Amino acid sequence: MNLEPQWIVGFVDGEGCFHVAINRHPDMKLGFQVLPEFTVVQHESDAQVLYALKAHFGCGVVRRNHGSRMAFRVRNLAHLAERIVPFFEKHHLKTRKRVEFLKFRRVVLLMQRGEHLTAEGLGRIGDIASAMNRGQSR
Amino acid sequence: MNLEPQWIVGFVDGEGCFHVAINRHPDMKLGFQVLPEFTVVQHESDAQVLYALKAHFGCGVVRRNHGSRMAFRVRNLAHLAERIVPFFEKHHLKTRKRVEFLKFRRVVLLMQRGEHLTAEGLGRIGDIASAMNRGQSR
Repeated sequence: MNLEPQWIVGFVDGEGCFHVAINRHPDMKLGFQVLPEFTVVQHESDAQVLYALKAHFGCGVVRRNHGSRMAFRVRNLAHLAERIVPFFEKHHLKTRKRVEFLKFRRVVLLMQRGEHLTAEGLGRIGDIASAMNRGQSR
Repeated sequence: MNLEPQWIVGFVDGEGCFHVAINRHPDMKLGFQVLPEFTVVQHESDAQVLYALKAHFGCGVVRRNHGSRMAFRVRNLAHLAERIVPFFEKHHLKTRKRVEFLKFRRVVLLMQRGEHLTAEGLGRIGDIASAMNRGQSR
């Protein structure tokens, strides 16, 4: 299955999720781990679309999510920074998901510069993440 | 906002719904009314996408759905037959929503020929509609 960029944008406008989790993690110097994640969830009967996304971006995994639902998921920072973020910089989302993406992009860029390893950077990321994940559930 | 066909296909693969309701209606000769309907639902903060779909197809209405959700909705049979169905005949959906569309298309074509006004045609439409709306909730 070959996916055109505009189909991907439309599908992600509907079904995609840009999320930044900040978890307590005692092994980390500052006690927190930042986990940006791009996901698209579908019923298992449409798993082929998720595999087509994986093939298109050349990264990520397709995994069972909950029950009969499957997810295409990208967590690797380099893959997010070099494949996912540039795609949506070039092909603009049309819904408010674009606002979510732009915040996600800021977090990924800060992490690429290692700023999540400083207290100040972690604070900035925390502010962005809490603004992202507030009242955006659908 | 200008929508490219592939964006619309991707967005409808995610968010669109092809539905056929068959309602009791004492004024109808056979006692039932067939109501095919194409809808796309979004949070009100993305209503501009629904208005862009309305402008693209040149038909339908944008209405409040439930609470903070809005819907783009096409119910007019001529508009379904002449604008919505041909668009998705030309631009194929990629998820199992294509199966749902093909059944929807059969109902619209049967109705265009007036077959919903005969007992036999109504029976066929009822079979298609019950196959469409079974286990497709997400």
